[in-house]
Amino acid sequence: MTNEPDSDAKRSQPNAGTKRARHKRAPIGAPPGTMLPDPSAPRPVISAMRMGEGACTEERAVSIERIAALREQGGLLWVAVAGIGDIEAIRRIGELFQLHRLALEDVAHTHQRPKLEDYPEHQFLVLRVLDSMHPGETEQMCMFLGDDFVLTFEEHPGDCFEPVRHRLRDPSSRLRKNGADYLAYALVDAVVDAYFPAMESLGDRLEVVEEAVVAGSAAAEVVRELHRARRELLVARRALWPLREVMSALMRADSARVTSDTRVYLRDVHDHVVQLLDLLENYRELGASLTELHLASASIRLNEVMKVLTLIATIFIPLTFLVGLYGMNFDHMPELHWRYSYPALLALMFGIAIGMLWWFRRRGWL
Amino acid sequence: MTNEPDSDAKRSQPNAGTKRARHKRAPIGAPPGTMLPDPSAPRPVISAMRMGEGACTEERAVSIERIAALREQGGLLWVAVAGIGDIEAIRRIGELFQLHRLALEDVAHTHQRPKLEDYPEHQFLVLRVLDSMHPGETEQMCMFLGDDFVLTFEEHPGDCFEPVRHRLRDPSSRLRKNGADYLAYALVDAVVDAYFPAMESLGDRLEVVEEAVVAGSAAAEVVRELHRARRELLVARRALWPLREVMSALMRADSARVTSDTRVYLRDVHDHVVQLLDLLENYRELGASLTELHLASASIRLNEVMKVLTLIATIFIPLTFLVGLYGMNFDHMPELHWRYSYPALLALMFGIAIGMLWWFRRRGWL
Amino acid sequence: MTNEPDSDAKRSQPNAGTKRARHKRAPIGAPPGTMLPDPSAPRPVISAMRMGEGACTEERAVSIERIAALREQGGLLWVAVAGIGDIEAIRRIGELFQLHRLALEDVAHTHQRPKLEDYPEHQFLVLRVLDSMHPGETEQMCMFLGDDFVLTFEEHPGDCFEPVRHRLRDPSSRLRKNGADYLAYALVDAVVDAYFPAMESLGDRLEVVEEAVVAGSAAAEVVRELHRARRELLVARRALWPLREVMSALMRADSARVTSDTRVYLRDVHDHVVQLLDLLENYRELGASLTELHLASASIRLNEVMKVLTLIATIFIPLTFLVGLYGMNFDHMPELHWRYSYPALLALMFGIAIGMLWWFRRRGWL
Amino acid sequence: MTNEPDSDAKRSQPNAGTKRARHKRAPIGAPPGTMLPDPSAPRPVISAMRMGEGACTEERAVSIERIAALREQGGLLWVAVAGIGDIEAIRRIGELFQLHRLALEDVAHTHQRPKLEDYPEHQFLVLRVLDSMHPGETEQMCMFLGDDFVLTFEEHPGDCFEPVRHRLRDPSSRLRKNGADYLAYALVDAVVDAYFPAMESLGDRLEVVEEAVVAGSAAAEVVRELHRARRELLVARRALWPLREVMSALMRADSARVTSDTRVYLRDVHDHVVQLLDLLENYRELGASLTELHLASASIRLNEVMKVLTLIATIFIPLTFLVGLYGMNFDHMPELHWRYSYPALLALMFGIAIGMLWWFRRRGWL
Amino acid sequence: MTNEPDSDAKRSQPNAGTKRARHKRAPIGAPPGTMLPDPSAPRPVISAMRMGEGACTEERAVSIERIAALREQGGLLWVAVAGIGDIEAIRRIGELFQLHRLALEDVAHTHQRPKLEDYPEHQFLVLRVLDSMHPGETEQMCMFLGDDFVLTFEEHPGDCFEPVRHRLRDPSSRLRKNGADYLAYALVDAVVDAYFPAMESLGDRLEVVEEAVVAGSAAAEVVRELHRARRELLVARRALWPLREVMSALMRADSARVTSDTRVYLRDVHDHVVQLLDLLENYRELGASLTELHLASASIRLNEVMKVLTLIATIFIPLTFLVGLYGMNFDHMPELHWRYSYPALLALMFGIAIGMLWWFRRRGWL
Repeated sequence: MTNEPDSDAKRSQPNAGTKRARHKRAPIGAPPGTMLPDPSAPRPVISAMRMGEGACTEERAVSIERIAALREQGGLLWVAVAGIGDIEAIRRIGELFQLHRLALEDVAHTHQRPKLEDYPEHQFLVLRVLDSMHPGETEQMCMFLGDDFVLTFEEHPGDCFEPVRHRLRDPSSRLRKNGADYLAYALVDAVVDAYFPAMESLGDRLEVVEEAVVAGSAAAEVVRELHRARRELLVARRALWPLREVMSALMRADSARVTSDTRVYLRDVHDHVVQLLDLLENYRELGASLTELHLASASIRLNEVMKVLTLIATIFIPLTFLVGLYGMNFDHMPELHWRYSYPALLALMFGIAIGMLWWFRRRGWL
Repeated sequence: MTNEPDSDAKRSQPNAGTKRARHKRAPIGAPPGTMLPDPSAPRPVISAMRMGEGACTEERAVSIERIAALREQGGLLWVAVAGIGDIEAIRRIGELFQLHRLALEDVAHTHQRPKLEDYPEHQFLVLRVLDSMHPGETEQMCMFLGDDFVLTFEEHPGDCFEPVRHRLRDPSSRLRKNGADYLAYALVDAVVDAYFPAMESLGDRLEVVEEAVVAGSAAAEVVRELHRARRELLVARRALWPLREVMSALMRADSARVTSDTRVYLRDVHDHVVQLLDLLENYRELGASLTELHLASASIRLNEVMKVLTLIATIFIPLTFLVGLYGMNFDHMPELHWRYSYPALLALMFGIAIGMLWWFRRRGWL
Repeated sequence: MTNEPDSDAKRSQPNAGTKRARHKRAPIGAPPGTMLPDPSAPRPVISAMRMGEGACTEERAVSIERIAALREQGGLLWVAVAGIGDIEAIRRIGELFQLHRLALEDVAHTHQRPKLEDYPEHQFLVLRVLDSMHPGETEQMCMFLGDDFVLTFEEHPGDCFEPVRHRLRDPSSRLRKNGADYLAYALVDAVVDAYFPAMESLGDRLEVVEEAVVAGSAAAEVVRELHRARRELLVARRALWPLREVMSALMRADSARVTSDTRVYLRDVHDHVVQLLDLLENYRELGASLTELHLASASIRLNEVMKVLTLIATIFIPLTFLVGLYGMNFDHMPELHWRYSYPALLALMFGIAIGMLWWFRRRGWL
Repeated sequence: MTNEPDSDAKRSQPNAGTKRARHKRAPIGAPPGTMLPDPSAPRPVISAMRMGEGACTEERAVSIERIAALREQGGLLWVAVAGIGDIEAIRRIGELFQLHRLALEDVAHTHQRPKLEDYPEHQFLVLRVLDSMHPGETEQMCMFLGDDFVLTFEEHPGDCFEPVRHRLRDPSSRLRKNGADYLAYALVDAVVDAYFPAMESLGDRLEVVEEAVVAGSAAAEVVRELHRARRELLVARRALWPLREVMSALMRADSARVTSDTRVYLRDVHDHVVQLLDLLENYRELGASLTELHLASASIRLNEVMKVLTLIATIFIPLTFLVGLYGMNFDHMPELHWRYSYPALLALMFGIAIGMLWWFRRRGWL
Repeated sequence: MTNEPDSDAKRSQPNAGTKRARHKRAPIGAPPGTMLPDPSAPRPVISAMRMGEGACTEERAVSIERIAALREQGGLLWVAVAGIGDIEAIRRIGELFQLHRLALEDVAHTHQRPKLEDYPEHQFLVLRVLDSMHPGETEQMCMFLGDDFVLTFEEHPGDCFEPVRHRLRDPSSRLRKNGADYLAYALVDAVVDAYFPAMESLGDRLEVVEEAVVAGSAAAEVVRELHRARRELLVARRALWPLREVMSALMRADSARVTSDTRVYLRDVHDHVVQLLDLLENYRELGASLTELHLASASIRLNEVMKVLTLIATIFIPLTFLVGLYGMNFDHMPELHWRYSYPALLALMFGIAIGMLWWFRRRGWL
C-alpha cells in the first residue's frame, strides 16, 4: 500500500471504496474482455512458490518469463499477483495459463460479487477480502484453480496470505503433500477467517452503542455510530452472502480437480461462512432493535421534559395572570382598597396551585 | 426525440412515463393482437445492417421494401426500428419476418415487463432501457432473435446501440464472425451496461444525502431527495428483477439458436444483472437506514430544542410570577414597606434559579 | 344493479363488500354442498349464445328448459348466469351440466379465492372481477369449462362480458372458429384487462398524494387517502395473487380440453396478471415510502415550529422577567431612582437578546 | 367447563391460555410417553356412536369397558373423549385401540401445533379449535383415524361436534354410508368452519377501529383494541398456518385409509383453510396500516396543536414584554409622560401582531 | 461452575458470552484442526457409563486410560466430558475414538452453530444448551455418535444430563435395551426440553411488559426490559433455527447407525424444536407489536400533555397581555380613569376565555 499515499486518505471516507471502483469500468458496449488500465491502481508485484519433489522454492518479485520457466519445471505452482495496475502483465499471465478472457476482464474490474465459474481449463473464483484497517470496505481477490497451479490476484499488496506462505515453508506441512485444491482451500480459509476479528470488533462497537442507548443516552454520536455499524454490516453481508453459494458450489463441484478429501475441508469453510452470516444477521437484528430502542427512549425523554414544562407552565400562568390583574392602574378597583384582599388573594393562589397539583397527580403525570 | 417537443417537457415530471404508457392500451375485451395507434409516439426510423461474405453493409432510414430485398440476399440481418408510432409499419415488418401477433402486440404496448418468449420461429425478448437523462424512467426495447436475423424495436430513437454499430463496422470484430445469437448478446450487453453509470450516479446522490443526514441536516429537501432516489430505485428494480430470470432462461434455452459459446457470454451478462441487483438492494437498505437515521436525528434535535425551552421557561416563569406579585397595587401589602424586602426577594429568586438548575443537572438534562 | 337499490348505498362504505359476503355462509358443520339462499342477492338472469354450423344464435333471459333444449342441438354453448339469488335455479343448471356439488356450493358462496379445480367432467374456475365503480371491492365470477360448453356465474348483472359478446356477433371472429377453451380464454382475458384502468386510476390518485406529501402538506385528508389507496391495493392483491397460480395451472393443465394453441394465449393473460402484480407491488412500495416521507416531513415541520416557539420564548421570557422586576412597588428599590437606570436596562436587555440569537445561530437553529 | 369455575375467570385474561398450558409439561429428561396428570383439567366424558348394518347407536357417558364391547360388534365406531383430566383412562383407551405412546403423550400435553403423523395402525391428527367465547385462545383437539374407528380427544367438553352428531342421526345422511375417512373429514370441516364467524367478528372489530382511526380519534382505547386484535390474529395464525400443511399432507397421504372420493372433500377443507389464512393476512396488513395511520394522525394532530400554541405564544409574548416595559416604575422614563405614547404603543403592538400573522401565513402555518 | 468464580460475574453482563467465545479462536490461516488452549475454560471432568450384559456401570472423574479399558470391555459406552479446558485430553480422547480432527477443532471452539456432520466412523452433532440461569446465553454441547459409543463434550460441568443418567440407573429403562442411537436421542431430547421452561419464563416476562404497556406505563425500564427480552429471543433463535435442520437431517440420515424405531422418537424431538420456534416467532411478533404499542401510547400521552399546556397557555397568555396593558404607567391613558373600565375589562376577559374554550371544543380538543 506504499505506492498510493493518497488512496489511504480517501479510504477513510465511508464511500471511498465505491468511488474508486467506479472509474475502472469499460465504456458501454465495449467488446467483452475489454480491460481498462486504472492509473491509480498499484503496479503488480508477482511472487511464486513451487512445490515438487518434496521441496518448496519461493521467489518474490519475479518476472513473467520466470513464471513461465517455473511452470515448465512441473510440480504445483502458486503464483500470487498483488496489484492489478498493469493490464498488459495480467494479459500475459492469462496467455501463459490459458485463462478465459471473460475471467481476466473480471480480474481487472474490481467490483465483482463473489462467484465461482467453471471453465474447462480451470475453476475461477472471485472472493472479497475484508480490509482489516477499514472494516467498511472489501477488496477483490480472484483465484484460478488449475490442475497444477493456483493463481491469485489481489487488488493491493496485503498480508492476507502470509500465514499460508508460512505454513508452506514448513516441510512437514500437509499443504506440501496435497494438491492444488488443498492449497486453494487453505487460501480461501485464510480469507474467510479474516472476517472473524472484524465481526468481533463490530460486535464490540455495537455493545458500546447498546450500553449507551440502554443508559438512555440521546447523543447524536450514538445514532451515527449505529448507522456506521449498520453500513459496515451491509458491506460484509454483500461479500459473504454470495460466498456461501460459492462454497457449496465448490463442494459439490462436478470436477476431478477437487478431491473428496478436500471437500470435507471445504465444508468446514462453508460452515464458517454460514456462522459469519448468522453473526451478521444477529448484529443486523440487534442494530434494528437498538434503533427502535433509541426512538422509544427519545419519546420517553420528550414526554418527561414536556410534563415538567407543562406542570410549571400550567401552574404559574394563571397565577401570573392574577397578579397582573391587581397590578393594573385603574382608578376604580375596589378590591385594591379592601383590608384583607392581599392575604385572600395569596390564599386563592395557593389553592389554585394545590388544585392543579392534585389534578396532575390524578391523571398520573406526577 | 426531435419530433416530440412536448414529450420531453412531460418527461421531466416524475411520473410522466407512467402517464404516457396509459393511453396506448387496447380497449377491454379487444381481440388479442389488437394494436392501437399512439399519435404521440414518434414515427419509426428503420435502419439495417447486413453481414455476409465478410462484408457489412449499413443502410439508414430504409423502407420496408428494402428490408425485404436485403433479407433475400441472405446473410445475417439486423433491423433496428426506432420509434413505434406507425402501427401499420410494425404489422408489415411482422408479416415479413413471420412474427407472432401476440409478440407484435407487446411491441406496440410499451408497458411490458422484461420477459423471454419462445416461439417456434423466433425468440422474443422484452427489455427495459434506462433513460440516461431521466433516471426515473425506462423505455421498452423488444428484440426478435431468428435464425438469420435480429430485429430490435426501440420506443424512441436513441443512441443505446451506437457502440455495437461501431464495433460491427470494424472488419476484424468478432461480431462479424459469429451468428445472430452473438449479435443479440452484444445488444443486450449494451442495454445492461447502460445501467451501471445510472446506478453509480444514484449512489453518488445517496452519498450526498447521507453526508447531509449524518451532519444532522433537517432540511425538507434532503428527505425529498431521499424519496426521489428510492423511487428511482423502484423503477430500476422493476426493470432488472425480471431481467435476471430472462437472462438465465436464455442461457438455459433449449434452442439450437443459442450456441454454447454464446452461453458463456450470456452468463457474463447474467452476472452483471445480478451485480446491479445487488447494488440496488444495497442502495435500498442504505435508503431505509438513512430514513431511520433522519427520524432519529430529528427526534434528538427536537429533544434538544425542547430541553432549552423547558429550561428557560421553568426557571423564569416562577420568577416572573414573583415579580408580578410585588407589582400589585393593593393598599395593604406590608412587605412592600419593609426595608430589606427587595434584596431578600432578589436572593430568594436567585436561590430558586440555582435550585432549578441543580435539579435539571441531577436529571441529566444539562 | 337496478334491483338492489340499498346495496349500492352500502357499497359506498369501504367495507360493505365484506359485510355482504358474511351473511351467506352455511351454518357450521352443515353437510358439504349446502347452499343457503341469500335474499338480498339479485335473481339470476340467464342468457345463452350457441355457436354451431357457422352460425351464432343469441338469446337473453331464457329459461332453464330452453337451455336444456339448446344443449341438445349440439355446438358450443355459452350460458351466462348473472345474479345468484335463486339457489334452486343454480341447482337445476348444475344437474343439467352435471356439475360437482362442491363446485356449486362455491358458486353460491361469494367469498372464494380465485382457484382452478379439475373435475373429470369440467374445469372449474373462480375469478374475482374488480368493480369499476368501487375499486375497493371485487365480485366473484365462476366459470365451468366443459367439452362443449362454457358456463359463467356472475354475482350481479354487469357489463364485463359485453365486449366478448360483441366479438362473437361478428361472423369473421376467431372466437367462432375455436373451441370452448378459446372462449374461456377470451372471458378470462376480459376480466383481467378490466384491472388495468382501475390500477391506473389508483396510480393517478397515488401521484396526487405524492405531490401533496412532497409539497409538505400535513392535511389529515392526505393520510386518509393514502390509507384508502393501500386498502384498495390489498383488495386487488388478494384477487390477483392467486389468479397468477390459476393461470399457470391452466396453462400447464394436463387436459385435452385446453389446446396447445390456446395455451399461448393463456400465457399472454398470465403475463398480464404478472404485470398487474408488478404494478401493485410498485404501488405498495410507493405507498409505504410515502407514509415514511409523510412522517419525516411532519417531524421536520414540528421541529421548525418548535424552533420558532423556542426562539421567541427564550428571548422574551427573561426580558419579561426583568421588566416585571422593575414594575414592583417596593418602597426601597434604589435603582428606580437612578438617572440612567432605564437606558441601562434597555441596553442590558438588548444585549441579552443579541447574545441569545448568537447562541442559537452557533447551535445551528437559525 | 362446569368443573373448573376459576379457569373461566383466568381465561378472560389475555394470556390465561398460555399460563394453563404451562403446568402440564413432563419434567425435563423424562422418558418419552410420560404423561403428567393435570389436576385442573376436567375429567373425561366419553361418548360413542357406532354405525353398522344401516343403524346408528349413540351412547353418552359410557365406560371404557363398554367401548371395548362396542368395538367387538364391528362397524364404524366414533369415540369422542371430552376432557383429558384422567391420564389412566387415556392410557387404557390407547391400549384398547393400540395407539402409539408418543401420540398419547401429545394428547395429554395440550400445547401441540397442528400436525399429521402416520403410524402403521392409524393416522394421528392434532388440530386447534378456536374458542368461540374467547377468540384469543385455542383448544387442542386430537384425532386418531383407524380403519374402522375415529377417536377424538377434546380438551374441554364443547359443542363443536354437535352438528356432525346431528347429521349422523339422520338415516339418509351420506355420513352413514361412507367410511371412517369421511367421518374424519366431517369433523375436521366442523373445526375449520368454526373459525369463520370468529374471523368475521374480528373483521368487524377492526372496522370499528378503522372508523375511529380514520375519524382521527386519539383515544388510547383504540390503540389497545388494535393491539388486542393483532394478538388474536397471532393466535389464529399459529393454529391455521400448520393446518394448511396438515390438510395437504392428508390429501396426498399415501394411505388406503383415505379414499379418492374423500380427497375431493379434503381439498375443499384445504381451500377453506387457505381462505382463512388469506383473510388473516389481510387483517394483519390492515392492522399494520392502521397502526401507521394512527401514528401519522397523531403526528398531524400534534403539529396542529403546536402550531396554535406557537401562534398565540409568539404573537403575545413580545407584546406582553412591551406592556411590562411601560409598567416599570423608574423615575426617569420620558416616554411615560409624552402625550401620544399610549396610542403610539397600541399602534406598534397592532403592527407587530399583523406582521407576525403575515409571516406565519407566508410560511404556510395558517 | 465452581472452578471459575469470576466467570459468573462476567456472565451477568448481557454480552459476556460473546466476549468469552472471542478469545479462543485459532489465529487466521492456522492449519485446520488447530486447537488453542483457553486458560479460562474449566478443566475437563470425565465420567463414563457402560451398558452391557444387562448391567450398567457408572464411573465418575475417570482417567483417559480407564476409558480405553472400558472401551475394550465392549457394550455401549457413554463418555461425558464436562469442561474443555485441557486441549491435550481432548486430543487423546479423539485418538482413542478415531474422531476427525476438524470435528475436534469444533469441540474446542465453542462458538459453533448447531450442525450435523457425517463422518464415516461417526456422526458429529453440535447443539447449544440454554443456560437456565442466564437465559441470554447458550453453551456448546458436542456429541459423537459411533456404533457402540456416545461421546459428549460440554463447555462447563452442568446438570443437563442428570435425568438421563437417572433413567439409565433404572434396570427396567428402555434406554438400557436400545442402542447408541436411542441414547443419543435421549440426550438431545433432554437438551431441547430444557428450552421450554426458559421460553415460558420469557413469556411471563413479556406478559408483565405487556400489562405495563397496555396500562400506559411510560417507564424507561419497560422499554429496556422489552429490549432485553428481544435479545434473549435472538439468542434462543440462533440456537434453535439450525437445530431444526439438524434434527430433520438426523431423521433422514442415510446411516445404519440410526434405527427406524429411533427415527420416530427423533421426529418427536423435531416437533418439539418446531414448537419452540413457533413460540419464539410468536414472542418476536408480540415484542414488535408491544414496541409499536409503546410508541403509539407515548404519542397519545404527548398529545394529551401538549393539549393541556396549549389550552392553559392560549387562554391565559392573551389575558395576561391585557392586564399588563393596563398596568402601564403612561400619564395619558384615558381608560384608566373611566368609572366602569375595570368591570368592562373583566367581562371582556371572561368573554375571551369562553370564546377560546368554545373554539377548542369545536376542534375536538376538549
